[in-house]
Amino acid sequence: MPIINITMTHEDGGATKEQKEQLAYKMTSVFDEVFGRGGKSAVVVINEVSTDNYAIGGKTITDIRKEQKTS
Amino acid sequence: MPIINITMTHEDGGATKEQKEQLAYKMTSVFDEVFGRGGKSAVVVINEVSTDNYAIGGKTITDIRKEQKTS
Amino acid sequence: MPIINITMTHEDGGATKEQKEQLAYKMTSVFDEVFGRGGKSAVVVINEVSTDNYAIGGKTITDIRKEQKTS
Amino acid sequence: MPIINITMTHEDGGATKEQKEQLAYKMTSVFDEVFGRGGKSAVVVINEVSTDNYAIGGKTITDIRKEQKTS
Amino acid sequence: MPIINITMTHEDGGATKEQKEQLAYKMTSVFDEVFGRGGKSAVVVINEVSTDNYAIGGKTITDIRKEQKTS
Amino acid sequence: MPIINITMTHEDGGATKEQKEQLAYKMTSVFDEVFGRGGKSAVVVINEVSTDNYAIGGKTITDIRKEQKTS
Repeated sequence: MPIINITMTHEDGGATKEQKEQLAYKMTSVFDEVFGRGGKSAVVVINEVSTDNYAIGGKTITDIRKEQKTS
Repeated sequence: MPIINITMTHEDGGATKEQKEQLAYKMTSVFDEVFGRGGKSAVVVINEVSTDNYAIGGKTITDIRKEQKTS
Repeated sequence: MPIINITMTHEDGGATKEQKEQLAYKMTSVFDEVFGRGGKSAVVVINEVSTDNYAIGGKTITDIRKEQKTS
Repeated sequence: MPIINITMTHEDGGATKEQKEQLAYKMTSVFDEVFGRGGKSAVVVINEVSTDNYAIGGKTITDIRKEQKTS
Repeated sequence: MPIINITMTHEDGGATKEQKEQLAYKMTSVFDEVFGRGGKSAVVVINEVSTDNYAIGGKTITDIRKEQKTS
Repeated sequence: MPIINITMTHEDGGATKEQKEQLAYKMTSVFDEVFGRGGKSAVVVINEVSTDNYAIGGKTITDIRKEQKTS
């Protein structure tokens, strides 16, 4: 029973229900494909984090996106 | 100082304040019982996750609960 | 830049290098397929945990596997 | 590309945008100072948790803060 | 299916098999007691971390233990 | 009592004891600087992960480092 924990930014209104369903289904299938187990028992948890609370290279994603828009 | 991190689905209105107090108290006591330490320093963090963001065997808990109701 | 954190048991000698490469590649591709981003930046971390340190329903995987062999 | 995951209580209205920017910037700089890498690629994720969902020594932070006020 | 993730220091030779079995069993029972679910499905993962890699108040547990022995 | 969890690759023989002490001390100081609390209670956990188990953009760090050496 593997645990697949996905941490991602909450952007553009956040992931849709369908995207979460797809992500859960496909991530589980990939695990099962590679290891031949986990297809029925894998746990997938999706953590959507505000872009104020997520940073890369010392800059929050909020600020990075702002720069991307003005560059 | 152990860290006890609990990830659970947010269902039926979510865990009550009393349930969280009980969970924190009892989980800490169990650790102390088993190891003879941590009773005063254990950190317990409870992450309540939407059933759209939590999946088992490739299906979100939202969809699993829907099936359980109609079966 | 999503973070895909996979926690799994270390069994049968553990995941091979090729399986880890496949898992990293395919998990990243799935994220990119669903969200149209993350293909070049997704971080995948694979935590392999001893079956003594992993339990389901109150029983360690070591004990569960023992029972499976003798049943 | 290190991942720096910070879990903290959501208190006094929560961390401000500026505090989160500072935390992300300074945590990334510290990692780079110590290891000479990660300055441009470190991922920082800040998880703010309700004081009902965070406990130390078996007591929730909500209850601890209440006691601190009345003692 | 809650996930109970326990991070603790690896000290005095580390937790014994019996202690891990007890921890898994009792933590699962506590969750089931409080919420009336999870008894058969709870996942418990125990992460044992070297005292060089675990710090409190800016000091590693290795150094804290050294001070405790000489004080 | 914030929890600062650092996940990094285990490279070049891994982080030295001094680097881990520095990381713990400086990360804790940064938190205290920004929020005026946590200096005495912050928990820092350092997870060093094999480069086979750590991937970016679908490639393991092992393979990325190999390519860097041959390019």
